[in-house]
Amino acid sequence: MNTNLHDYAYDLEKAMRNSGEFKHLKEMYRAVTDDSEASRMFDEFRNIQMQLQQKQMEGRDISEEEVMRAQEIANRVQQNEKVTKLMEAEQQMSMTITELNKIIMKPLDELYSSMS
Amino acid sequence: MNTNLHDYAYDLEKAMRNSGEFKHLKEMYRAVTDDSEASRMFDEFRNIQMQLQQKQMEGRDISEEEVMRAQEIANRVQQNEKVTKLMEAEQQMSMTITELNKIIMKPLDELYSSMS
Ligand SMILES: [Ca+2]
Ligand SMILES: [Ca+2]
Repeated sequence: MNTNLHDYAYDLEKAMRNSGEFKHLKEMYRAVTDDSEASRMFDEFRNIQMQLQQKQMEGRDISEEEVMRAQEIANRVQQNEKVTKLMEAEQQMSMTITELNKIIMKPLDELYSSMS
Repeated sequence: MNTNLHDYAYDLEKAMRNSGEFKHLKEMYRAVTDDSEASRMFDEFRNIQMQLQQKQMEGRDISEEEVMRAQEIANRVQQNEKVTKLMEAEQQMSMTITELNKIIMKPLDELYSSMS
């Protein structure tokens, strides 16, 4: 175990916590959780997404009814500005995390690609 | 996009590259790639593992023959010290990466768990 390596990770964690993206994401979450309608809608959307992903991962069939229900929820979600703003913030954060991971994993990527 | 955040990731990348775990992993890789027998065995093992994982992810059946072939390769691999040392180094690196990810993702984990 390399203490030094963990120290750099803690520095990045602190930077993450203080970043504009994270603060924005937190605000957008708060806006949704403070609004019972938006909050219920967001939970419903997240639940159906997770259910369908789970089924897909397990190779199980997704019924036409489930697809239609997911579509119906997605349509409603798109009408709610608080929820769409939260989803945009999540998307942004997800892209940032992908970028950070690409940077951190570069030494390993290089090592593995040098093998093949 | 937060430049500062990326700078911290680059610092962590450099620390990763200079870490004992990574240097050890590189050495163990070199020992395998410099040995044609060990190298061939390692490739064979990695290929069958990837094939079986792929099949599992797609929900396809894994035949008894495939299981036996994987087992046979795994048995041979366990006899080769260079390959087993490389696999131990990979396991170690994988654990370190899991730890680092846990640290970096803590702000997001906290945010998501505060919601539910
Ligand atoms: Ca409302
Ligand atoms: Ca040999």
